[in-house]
Amino acid sequence: MNNPLDELKKRLAEISDLTAASAVLSWDQMTLMPSGGAAARARQLATMQRLAHEKAIDPEIGRLLEALQPLADTLPQDSDDASLIRVATRDYERESKIPPSFTAEFSEHASHTYEKWAQARSEHNFKIVEPFLAKTLDYSRQRANFYPGYEHIADPLIDAMDEGLKVSVIRPLFDELRQELIPLVQRITSLPPADDSCLKQQFSEAEQLQFGLGVAKALGYDFERGREDKSPHPFTTSFSIQDVRITTRVKENELNEALFSTIHETGHALYEQGINPELEATPLAAGTAMGIHESQSRLWENLVGRSRQFWEHFFPELQKVFPEQLGKVSLDTFYRAINKVQRSLIRTDADEVTYNLHVMIRFDLELSMLEGKLAVADLPEAWNERYRQDLGITPPDDSRGVLQDMHWYSGTIGGYFQSYTIGNVLSAQFFEAALAAHPEIPGEIAAGRFETLHQWLTKNIYQYGRELQGMEIVRRVTGKPMTIVPYIRYLKKKYGELYRL
Amino acid sequence: MNNPLDELKKRLAEISDLTAASAVLSWDQMTLMPSGGAAARARQLATMQRLAHEKAIDPEIGRLLEALQPLADTLPQDSDDASLIRVATRDYERESKIPPSFTAEFSEHASHTYEKWAQARSEHNFKIVEPFLAKTLDYSRQRANFYPGYEHIADPLIDAMDEGLKVSVIRPLFDELRQELIPLVQRITSLPPADDSCLKQQFSEAEQLQFGLGVAKALGYDFERGREDKSPHPFTTSFSIQDVRITTRVKENELNEALFSTIHETGHALYEQGINPELEATPLAAGTAMGIHESQSRLWENLVGRSRQFWEHFFPELQKVFPEQLGKVSLDTFYRAINKVQRSLIRTDADEVTYNLHVMIRFDLELSMLEGKLAVADLPEAWNERYRQDLGITPPDDSRGVLQDMHWYSGTIGGYFQSYTIGNVLSAQFFEAALAAHPEIPGEIAAGRFETLHQWLTKNIYQYGRELQGMEIVRRVTGKPMTIVPYIRYLKKKYGELYRL
Repeated sequence: MNNPLDELKKRLAEISDLTAASAVLSWDQMTLMPSGGAAARARQLATMQRLAHEKAIDPEIGRLLEALQPLADTLPQDSDDASLIRVATRDYERESKIPPSFTAEFSEHASHTYEKWAQARSEHNFKIVEPFLAKTLDYSRQRANFYPGYEHIADPLIDAMDEGLKVSVIRPLFDELRQELIPLVQRITSLPPADDSCLKQQFSEAEQLQFGLGVAKALGYDFERGREDKSPHPFTTSFSIQDVRITTRVKENELNEALFSTIHETGHALYEQGINPELEATPLAAGTAMGIHESQSRLWENLVGRSRQFWEHFFPELQKVFPEQLGKVSLDTFYRAINKVQRSLIRTDADEVTYNLHVMIRFDLELSMLEGKLAVADLPEAWNERYRQDLGITPPDDSRGVLQDMHWYSGTIGGYFQSYTIGNVLSAQFFEAALAAHPEIPGEIAAGRFETLHQWLTKNIYQYGRELQGMEIVRRVTGKPMTIVPYIRYLKKKYGELYRL
Repeated sequence: MNNPLDELKKRLAEISDLTAASAVLSWDQMTLMPSGGAAARARQLATMQRLAHEKAIDPEIGRLLEALQPLADTLPQDSDDASLIRVATRDYERESKIPPSFTAEFSEHASHTYEKWAQARSEHNFKIVEPFLAKTLDYSRQRANFYPGYEHIADPLIDAMDEGLKVSVIRPLFDELRQELIPLVQRITSLPPADDSCLKQQFSEAEQLQFGLGVAKALGYDFERGREDKSPHPFTTSFSIQDVRITTRVKENELNEALFSTIHETGHALYEQGINPELEATPLAAGTAMGIHESQSRLWENLVGRSRQFWEHFFPELQKVFPEQLGKVSLDTFYRAINKVQRSLIRTDADEVTYNLHVMIRFDLELSMLEGKLAVADLPEAWNERYRQDLGITPPDDSRGVLQDMHWYSGTIGGYFQSYTIGNVLSAQFFEAALAAHPEIPGEIAAGRFETLHQWLTKNIYQYGRELQGMEIVRRVTGKPMTIVPYIRYLKKKYGELYRL
C-alpha cells in the first residue's frame, strides 16, 4: 500500500495530464486544425473531459483526502503539501456535488444554445435564442442550488471562478466604482475626441507579429517555454508550467488589435510561467482565481503597455518597423491614440475608462435574472435601457447589444463577468504596491526593462499558483483588502493629464 | 442494458479518442512544442497511453467480444461488423498480454530516449544515448516474451506491425533480394556517376514548401482534412479519417529532400484519408499493416514521383519556381539526378536501388541484438562494419551512422525496419497490378493527373482500413503472395534504361 499522499499525488497528476491533453486538443482546434477534423475533435474533447471528471470525483480521492486531514493539520498552512490537500479537498467537494447527468445534459444544452446564439446574432434577432437562454437560466439556478446555504444565488457561481468572493462584497465595490466612472466618462467625452487615425493605416501581418513577439520577449515571456500562434479569439493556455502558449489575431488595418492582445495574453502567460515548478502536475499549478489572472493581463496590457514610459522605449522601434506609416507621427499623438476614450457599444473594443461600465451592466443584469427579478424575455430592453443610462448610447440592434458576448450563450448565467472588473481594479492596486516597493520601475520601463516588476510579481503573486486564495494575496501584497482607490487614482492621473482635465 | 455491439463500439470509440489524443500530443511534441515542454509531455503521453491500454484490456471488452462471437459467425466475413469483432478480438488478445505498468514505464522511457537521441545526434556522440538504448533492448525482449511460443524472438514484434509475417518468411525473401541487388549496385556504381549538381544549388525554403504542397494537392491529398508542418524527421499521423497530417523537412541546398519526403508522406496520408469514413472511431480506421502502408508511400514517392512521366508534367512547373537554378537544366538531366544511384551513408537519402541494403543491415542488426549476439555497446562498430561490407563505405561519425534514424530511439528494437523493404517490394507488385487494370495510368501521370491510380488504390486497398489483413490484400489485388519479381523487374527496366546496362 502506497503512502496516501503519494497515492493522492499520483491521482492528481493523472487528472492534470488529462486536463493538459484536453488543453492541447483544444489549442490545436482553435489554431491549426483543418476544418475536416471538427467532428472527431468535438468527440475527442468530450471524451477527455468526461474521463477527467470521472477521475476527479472518484470516491477513492475523497477517502485519501479524509485520511490525510490529520497530516494536513500538523503541517504549516503555507507548505506545499498542506496547500495541496486543502485545494484538492475544495476541488473534490465542489466537483462531486454536481451529478454527472447534469454535466452531460447542460453541456449538450450549452452547445445547442451556442449554435442558436450564432444564428440569432447574424440575424440580429434575440427571439431565436430566447427560449434557450431561459433554459440556461434554469440550469444556472440549478447549478447554484447544488451548493445550498449561500447568501446570494450567484455566490456559488462566482465562487467557482473567484473563490471566496460573493455578491455582498462585489456589489458595493462596483457601485462605488460606477459613481466614480460615470462623471469621469462624461467629462472626457464632452471634449474633442483623440485622433487615432495613425492606428488605422495598413500594417503587414508578418511585421506586426514579429514586433509583438519582440515585445513579449522583452516583457519576460520565455519562448523556450511557450510560443505564439494565431486564432480567431486570442487566449492563453497552459500544458505545463514549462509550456504556456499564447495566441493573437491580427488586423492589417488596426495596429492596436494584435499588439495589445499579445501584451494582454503575455500578462496571463507570465503568471502561468511564473508558478513554482515544484507544483507541476498538481491542482496548485494554475492561477489562483479569474480576477487575479485578469489583474495580470490588464496590468501588463494597460498599466505597462499603454503607459507613456513604455512607448518612450518602444515607439522608436515601432517607427523603424513601419517608417512610412509612423515615421512622422509624434510619440504624443501615438500615446493619445492608443488611449482614446469614447462611448461605444462593444465591450471588447472599449477603452480603459469605459470598459468597466460595460462589465457592470452585465453583472447587474445577470444578478437580476438569477434573483428572478428580470425575465429573459425582458433582457434586451433592460440591456438597452442600461446602455442609455450608463453610457448615453442605445444599441441599434441586439447584435450590438445583448447578443455581443458569447458568455451567457455558452456557459452559465453568472460567475464570469465580475472578474474582468476585479482584474482592472486589482491591476492598479498591485501596481501601486510594486511602485511603492520599487520606485525605479517607471524609469526601467522607459528603458525597455521589466525585470524588477516581473520579479516582484513572481515573488509576490505568480510563484504561489493556487496555494494562496485570491483575496489573501491582495491582503498580503498590498496590506489592504480589495479597494478601488488605487484604480481611480491611476485613471484620474493618467486621463487627467491626457485630457488636461 | 445496451446491445453488446453498441456497448463495444462505445468502448472502442473511447479507446480511439485516447489514442488520437496521444497522437496529437506526440505530433505537437515533434513539430511545434517549445523545448521546455518536454518533461511534462513525456509524462502526459505516458498517462494517455496507459489509460488507452487500461481501457483496451478491460475484461468487460473481453466479455462483450465473447458474447458477440455467435453474431460474428452469422455475419458475412467481409462485413464491417464481423471485421470489427474480428480485429477487436485480435487487438484485445494481443494487448491484454502486456501489463499496464510496462506500457507506462516504456512510454516514459521512450520519450526520454528520444530527447537523448536528439542530443546525441547533434553532438555526434552515441555514448549519450547508449545506456538508454541498452534499456530499450531489455524492454524490447521483455515485450516479445509476453508472447511465448514464437519461432524467433523478433516474431511477436514483427507481428504487431506486420500481422502474420515472421522472421522465417522475411529472411529468405530478403536473402533473395540481396542476391539480386548487390550485383545490380555493383554494375551501376562501376559506371560514371549521374550528375546531380542541379539539385545541390540554393533553393529557398518557402518556395520548396509551396511547390511540395502543390504536388501533394495534385496527387489527391485533401488539405481540408490535413496539413503539413516541419519536423526533424518527416512522418504522417492520423487524428481521425478527416484529419490526417504530414510533416516534412527542408534543406535549402538539396532540392530532393523536402520534395520526395513530402511525396512519401503524401502516399501514407492518401491511404489514411482513403479509409471508409464509416469506420471512424473504430480500430478498423487505420492502415492494415506497416508493410502495406510503406508500399503506398513508396509507390507514390518512387514509382510515381521518380518516374519520367511525372516530371514530364512537373518539371516545367518546377523550372518556373526556380528559373535561375533549373531554367537551363534538361528534363533528362533532372530525371537522372533524382534517380542517381550511389553508395551512401544515410538511409533516407538513399536511392531506390541501394535503399534496401540499408534496411536489411538494420534488420539483421536488430535480430542480432534481440538474439543476444550483439551488445548495444558494440552496435556502432557492428553498424560500421556492415556498411563497409554491403555498401563499401564507412560512416565518419555516429550521426551519419547508428544515430541517423529515430526508430530504435523512440520505440522498440525490432518489428519496424522490415516493413520498409516489404513496402518497396509490394509497391511494385501493386503498381504492376494497377497498370494491368488501367494501362492508361502512365499517360495520365504524364499529364499531371492521378485520379485513376488514386481511385484504383482507394477501391482495392485504402477503403478497407484494417478490415483485410495485409497479405490477404496482396493476394486479392495481385492474385499472388508477396514476391520480389515485379520489384526486380521494375528496377532492372528503369535502371537498365537509365544506365544503359
